[in-house]
Amino acid sequence: MNIMNDEFYMSLALDMAERAQGQTGINPVVGCVVVKDGAVIGLGTHLQRGTGHAEVHALNMAAGKAQGSTAYVTLEPCSHYGKTPPCSQRLIDEGVARVVVACEDPNPQVAGRGFEMLREAGIDVEVGLLRSRALRLNERFIKYILTKQPFVTLKSASTLDGKLATKTGDSKWISNGQAREIVHTLRHRHQGIMVGVGTVIADNPSLTTRLEVPGLHPVRIVIDSGLRTPLDANVVTGGEAPTIIVTTTAADPAKKAALEAAGVTVITCGDGPRVDLKAAMVALGGMEIGSILLEGGGTLNGSMLQSGLVDRVVLFYAPKIVGGGAEAPGTFDFPGVALMKEAITLEGLEVEVLGDNVCISGTPVR
Amino acid sequence: MNIMNDEFYMSLALDMAERAQGQTGINPVVGCVVVKDGAVIGLGTHLQRGTGHAEVHALNMAAGKAQGSTAYVTLEPCSHYGKTPPCSQRLIDEGVARVVVACEDPNPQVAGRGFEMLREAGIDVEVGLLRSRALRLNERFIKYILTKQPFVTLKSASTLDGKLATKTGDSKWISNGQAREIVHTLRHRHQGIMVGVGTVIADNPSLTTRLEVPGLHPVRIVIDSGLRTPLDANVVTGGEAPTIIVTTTAADPAKKAALEAAGVTVITCGDGPRVDLKAAMVALGGMEIGSILLEGGGTLNGSMLQSGLVDRVVLFYAPKIVGGGAEAPGTFDFPGVALMKEAITLEGLEVEVLGDNVCISGTPVR
Repeated sequence: MNIMNDEFYMSLALDMAERAQGQTGINPVVGCVVVKDGAVIGLGTHLQRGTGHAEVHALNMAAGKAQGSTAYVTLEPCSHYGKTPPCSQRLIDEGVARVVVACEDPNPQVAGRGFEMLREAGIDVEVGLLRSRALRLNERFIKYILTKQPFVTLKSASTLDGKLATKTGDSKWISNGQAREIVHTLRHRHQGIMVGVGTVIADNPSLTTRLEVPGLHPVRIVIDSGLRTPLDANVVTGGEAPTIIVTTTAADPAKKAALEAAGVTVITCGDGPRVDLKAAMVALGGMEIGSILLEGGGTLNGSMLQSGLVDRVVLFYAPKIVGGGAEAPGTFDFPGVALMKEAITLEGLEVEVLGDNVCISGTPVR
Repeated sequence: MNIMNDEFYMSLALDMAERAQGQTGINPVVGCVVVKDGAVIGLGTHLQRGTGHAEVHALNMAAGKAQGSTAYVTLEPCSHYGKTPPCSQRLIDEGVARVVVACEDPNPQVAGRGFEMLREAGIDVEVGLLRSRALRLNERFIKYILTKQPFVTLKSASTLDGKLATKTGDSKWISNGQAREIVHTLRHRHQGIMVGVGTVIADNPSLTTRLEVPGLHPVRIVIDSGLRTPLDANVVTGGEAPTIIVTTTAADPAKKAALEAAGVTVITCGDGPRVDLKAAMVALGGMEIGSILLEGGGTLNGSMLQSGLVDRVVLFYAPKIVGGGAEAPGTFDFPGVALMKEAITLEGLEVEVLGDNVCISGTPVR
């Protein structure tokens, strides 16, 4: 049973923000709950980039009755005049008496300004309630706003011996339904989904979001040094989402033109023979792709991880052992480290049991 | 808070049996709680092969006051006259009114006889309370009593990419302290500990049980087709526990004699070039080794698993990724299966989070 206190309302604001993950693009997810005289009088969530902020929606719902109320907001209210007046001003104008905020604006150049505005107007401001949950919710936004590069989540589903397929290449099926539905939910939550051309050739995936309810399809990104993506591949012909192919200057111009004619955006990162992955992240960030779900094979996963370009690792394990040594492809295929103490280590480990599958996730220590 | 009922007492009997795991050899672990007039009047556990059964200890503690009592026993009381009269007779003689039992004697040739004796004497008998926990507790005993072959627990500690070491062979350290203490507790609970000669040569392990409190050392078993075990290896010179080396008829008789002179038991299973592992299990069972903890490298683990000789798989994962491809040794090195649906599957999966390590265990489906 819940207990009514500040956390009671803030956790609802966070729940609302959580459900909006994936639909705000490079914007953060934010929730707001306005409470007065013991009752909720307004609820709001930022739904889409370029539309109203959470506080605005909540105060609109309150319909002028927010005088003396408390507003619970998951992220510091904005203080800049953009397309609309800043949310801090709106809170002041509505006569809100107290503002409880989960976390500061991550951008150090603006952090604190919202609080300043509110305090100068005599509003009681408290910061930090459920901060870690709020920061986690916006980890993709925070990475992008600070670096202009996408937050990369590496996802893989393997056997207990770390294999993506048997020695003959068979991979049907590793994960159970619950794990697959989480993967598709992750697709919805990321702006881009990235694979290597090997995966496109081997599996011809659609890379779309398929769930019991409709979801948003991420932009499809194929790392393809030699432009080997077939013109009849699902990622080329399927119109569900845009496709970006990342290649090198060494690629065949005729193939590039053919792919572009088919509607694919081809960008060049590096002079070959391999795509310069660091440059690719900068380029994709420049295209306002703020988050990428990496569903690569072992080589791309290994390269991204060893290049320090992975921000979160999500590994699903199925209760299977297939052996096959080097013939059976593994989740991570890279030259590797010499000493165990040099291992790429995950911190903040989370473990979730999904029926007979297990999900282990964490953040690589830099 | 516990609720007083039959389970309240049976769970204590199971707790007592659980703590005796490892010290009863090929015998089961059994606990008994005798209750009368709302109070415990006797507790007993079978402590060591050849010594008193749980019921006897508990009734001795009750000191003649068990008339009309209820006895909670984790395993069907015995009905055969051995070194001592059967426990069922003792329960009858003491005037116990009701006997609650968790599980039947697994041996189909004796199962039910104990209950018959008790019921014929007018005692109220109930069977099956917390049965699955009781069966699990004695899974090693059950396998051995039914097959005369040891119950094999495969234990491994690897990185998240399934590696036992880096490509240079470095493995210091993979597991955290909590995982290591569980491994040593597993050593105490098994009569034998088995490795390949490669592990003996590479790591020169003692294979002893080292915990905060003293534990029992398992018999050390080395699979060594070519008798390459060095005479100065810790398993040869360390006197903490007996050592058995399993080899083939192709092994050098002089080396065999030297190892035997050093106190090692050398047994021959197969004509080479590799040890016949199935024959080895039969031979070790014949030596009354009823349970083995397999701490092998990838090759031995893979061979045992693919031969269907593994009864339980316990995999510890540390939050590390080391890469290295085929150069970095993995937990399972065997030819492997062609199709994912032919994978060796674990059922009854259990997942335990141990700080930043994760333990995934299960039973291979035969």
